[in-house]
Amino acid sequence: MTKNFKGIAASNGVAIAKAYLLVDPDLSFDKKTINDVTAEQARVDDALKASSEDVTLIKSKAEKNLGASEAQVFEAHLMVLADPEMSGAIKQKIADDKVNAEAAVKEVTDMYIGMFEAMTDNEYMQERAADIRDVTKRIMSHLLHVSLPNPALIDEEVVLVSKDLTPSDTAQLDRQFVKGILTDLGGRTAHASIMARTLEIPAVVGSDVATKEISAGDLVIVDGLTGDVIANPDDDTLATYQKKADDYLAQRAEWAKLKDEQSVSADGKEFVVGANIGSPKDMAAVLDNGSEGIGLYRTEFLYMESDHLPTEDEQFEAYKAVVEKMGDKPVTVRTMDIGGDKHLSYWQLPEEENPFLGYRAIRISLDQTEIFRTQLRALLRASAFGNLWIMFPMIATLGEFRAAKKICIEERTKLEESGVKVGDIKLGIMIEIPAAAMLADKFAKEVDFFSIGTNDLIGYTMAADRGNDRVAYLYQPYNPSILRLINNVIAAAHNEGKFVAMCGEMAGDPIAVPILMGMGLDEFSMSAPSVLQTRSLMKKLDTTKMAELAKQALDAETNDEVIALVKEVTQ
Amino acid sequence: MTKNFKGIAASNGVAIAKAYLLVDPDLSFDKKTINDVTAEQARVDDALKASSEDVTLIKSKAEKNLGASEAQVFEAHLMVLADPEMSGAIKQKIADDKVNAEAAVKEVTDMYIGMFEAMTDNEYMQERAADIRDVTKRIMSHLLHVSLPNPALIDEEVVLVSKDLTPSDTAQLDRQFVKGILTDLGGRTAHASIMARTLEIPAVVGSDVATKEISAGDLVIVDGLTGDVIANPDDDTLATYQKKADDYLAQRAEWAKLKDEQSVSADGKEFVVGANIGSPKDMAAVLDNGSEGIGLYRTEFLYMESDHLPTEDEQFEAYKAVVEKMGDKPVTVRTMDIGGDKHLSYWQLPEEENPFLGYRAIRISLDQTEIFRTQLRALLRASAFGNLWIMFPMIATLGEFRAAKKICIEERTKLEESGVKVGDIKLGIMIEIPAAAMLADKFAKEVDFFSIGTNDLIGYTMAADRGNDRVAYLYQPYNPSILRLINNVIAAAHNEGKFVAMCGEMAGDPIAVPILMGMGLDEFSMSAPSVLQTRSLMKKLDTTKMAELAKQALDAETNDEVIALVKEVTQ
Repeated sequence: MTKNFKGIAASNGVAIAKAYLLVDPDLSFDKKTINDVTAEQARVDDALKASSEDVTLIKSKAEKNLGASEAQVFEAHLMVLADPEMSGAIKQKIADDKVNAEAAVKEVTDMYIGMFEAMTDNEYMQERAADIRDVTKRIMSHLLHVSLPNPALIDEEVVLVSKDLTPSDTAQLDRQFVKGILTDLGGRTAHASIMARTLEIPAVVGSDVATKEISAGDLVIVDGLTGDVIANPDDDTLATYQKKADDYLAQRAEWAKLKDEQSVSADGKEFVVGANIGSPKDMAAVLDNGSEGIGLYRTEFLYMESDHLPTEDEQFEAYKAVVEKMGDKPVTVRTMDIGGDKHLSYWQLPEEENPFLGYRAIRISLDQTEIFRTQLRALLRASAFGNLWIMFPMIATLGEFRAAKKICIEERTKLEESGVKVGDIKLGIMIEIPAAAMLADKFAKEVDFFSIGTNDLIGYTMAADRGNDRVAYLYQPYNPSILRLINNVIAAAHNEGKFVAMCGEMAGDPIAVPILMGMGLDEFSMSAPSVLQTRSLMKKLDTTKMAELAKQALDAETNDEVIALVKEVTQ
Repeated sequence: MTKNFKGIAASNGVAIAKAYLLVDPDLSFDKKTINDVTAEQARVDDALKASSEDVTLIKSKAEKNLGASEAQVFEAHLMVLADPEMSGAIKQKIADDKVNAEAAVKEVTDMYIGMFEAMTDNEYMQERAADIRDVTKRIMSHLLHVSLPNPALIDEEVVLVSKDLTPSDTAQLDRQFVKGILTDLGGRTAHASIMARTLEIPAVVGSDVATKEISAGDLVIVDGLTGDVIANPDDDTLATYQKKADDYLAQRAEWAKLKDEQSVSADGKEFVVGANIGSPKDMAAVLDNGSEGIGLYRTEFLYMESDHLPTEDEQFEAYKAVVEKMGDKPVTVRTMDIGGDKHLSYWQLPEEENPFLGYRAIRISLDQTEIFRTQLRALLRASAFGNLWIMFPMIATLGEFRAAKKICIEERTKLEESGVKVGDIKLGIMIEIPAAAMLADKFAKEVDFFSIGTNDLIGYTMAADRGNDRVAYLYQPYNPSILRLINNVIAAAHNEGKFVAMCGEMAGDPIAVPILMGMGLDEFSMSAPSVLQTRSLMKKLDTTKMAELAKQALDAETNDEVIALVKEVTQ
């Protein structure tokens, strides 16, 4: 039966493939009394063996896709599966209690999990409990002959259908096989959506009903351009979408030709189109898409993916790897933006009523200055190897910028006095707090550059948490109030001859780009796969006309009115 | 020994009195084997009797100060104390186990508490557990001969010293005896501070060390004008502060003479100085202080102090009582502002990561329109009895105002069609979200008035939760970014000939008032006890000079710079 529904278009392109449901299967069973102990024990051995084969395969895929350190967790899983004490206890229980393998596995593993979890202040033991829980699921799936979905094991072209995708799910995706992503939950700025765009996999999120409406093996069309989803289409529909998918790929091929060109408007005005990255691993996409700079290097991933505060040398290597690869193109590195919704396993920040309005980013850096100084030293050392700019996140007052700048200069002086070479860094701030946007004229006299972080700026200006479904309708990038703040920032920067970039989602948004060109934004930094599309769009637009459009948008009343204005002018 | 320390000046005036420590006493005891069962049982009876006497006294005080419904909890406490089953069980345990009264009381009450608390989904039983817990503390205090502090039992002049004050603590304060308040925690905008100002009790909060440094009976000076605290002062210091206290009282007496005067600047420009209220109970202070209007009637207290959604008639009576008392003076009623940190016991709102950026106020009203319509009908009916203005809180977009206005007009039409008289209401919005402040020119074309809610506006603009100690330094009312937003709102309103009020803490702040006069703010609404002081300040200031001051403040760089500018001009 053909089914239609709609979600949020989260990553461009059209995918057509069989559905692969990434949902937990039913692992319930009946406890039974058995007679043949040996046969039942053999079932355990078989299940353990099959599980080890699975995990070995997953591990090798993870090593290939993610690197050895990320694959370590699977090594731990293999150790659990090979543990003679645990398998011995399971078999003993079968012999003693005459119960079926399922019951024996459940009771023994529950006992282990309970034991480890009871040691609540020992993180290592907590992780062991999680490992056993994971492994037990796999053993049970083999005993019960149900398939345990795992994105790493997919070996044919599919559309992945799930409630939500965790960061670890997306890390295991193989672009060769996963042609589309479809989820029940999430919005355009959710982690899964950002990953889908980075991997260039068409995606529709927040459909509410995908896992309910779609069955494994259904042929599914996921239109990441419009948010439309069609399951088991008729032939006409299939042909229409097949053409749309081909057209999109053809368009991408056109865009790819722009890789080595400069970003320039129809009337010859030059812009910088840069990319946002989270780690040196993202550099391939940056270079493949001809990014003219890195407008945002999110260093918090260095902290989040480690099990300790990254050392100065660890950071130095990560920063150096990126600036070296970019040559003389600018790399804007944002200092640590921990707090809010970003947590570290090894460093407990205080519980807060409203973490987005709390202790985070530069507020932590200026409070715990040793951590900040370590990062600055690593950045200053790396600056000798390329064109490195440093920016501070969550700046609200001039006092904060002055304090951060002072610390940076102190560290620079110390390094230079001890003979370490430091490059010609620029110091700037994120404009993501309304207070800083309102006072941009004053900030512009003291900073080298601005980078507008629209995700948070919109959240604070509208007083709406974009992660909260009930108020998500207030996350309005084109609301004239937001546009006025942005325009104020750009004008203030240019009035002092300073450079102004944008590194939020808006910078790569085809509705926003024409307005931002009209306002004279200097750099647009976005996820790497959007770079060429944006460059292509810029080539078609005349900045004088866009300045007129921007003026109208600034005088509009609502978000919807601005969307209509842009569509009228650009389409 | 004389001790000096400093906290946050939270309520004006100087208090000098003995310290009364409102901290939990040590109720630990040794379990002992006893021989004389009868004597030990008699100790229980004595403690129960003494406890009942305490509670009866507290109850009668609460009835006098707060009304019968708020005193009901003490009725429940008396019932626990009179329960023959519980006292029987305690005495039985003494007889059976030969233990001392303390041990028997502890074991029996723990058993009851555990039993009631186990019924987790029964709110009534949870409350019984809390009652027994409270009562047990009191019984133990009598057994151990330690005094259990209770603000209601204070019968001599004291300075109340505590970690923090809960709303129920402050509700029990008797102004006759409590001359000053001193706490370890809290800021100027904490509940305890607002209550202290309403009750006109000098207060210093957030001292960190008060309960550690001060002992019961110490003579304490609390300077609510500067935040200074001195324990056991020498004679010279005592005389100096005695004079300061007298001077302040003399100044208040001067201010009192302004009660029936109009609020007018030195150069004859008229302003409205109004009061903020939470319920009809606050009207005495409003009238005593000669308020020229009510700039903010916070209706959420109607919802919070009830055990059910208040009915249309209940609301109508509360609104009518206030507008009638104010005659032709305007009463601006804010529709329900539930959510954020304001919860209802009988209506569970969703848990949110960042409630201040979530589902609250008008966002709830526009989503659950039946509750909103009920409130609007009550307001429209009350409007026939005075000069009632309605304002919507947390408006971020024009769409929200239009939707709220439409519903209001619908209800008005329905009422009028059924013959109910409706007054000549005005419809306005709170400006407390940066987006609305940025777009004030557009809003000004559609609303009848603005009221600037600075508490939230500052929080969102600075991206700082004022209740979070770690970022409280960012709650900067005079930051030029805030002043620019406010100025934008006032100018936009006046450009369309609309009235603009302010009802946040800033409106009564002597540093802010001169700037706001310079900007031409029409109404200043504050806690009633600040009305006359503000009127007195206004009389001394020339609006042309203040306009010049405002201009300088708008061009300043930091909060501190603005404070210095105001002090230079006004002192």
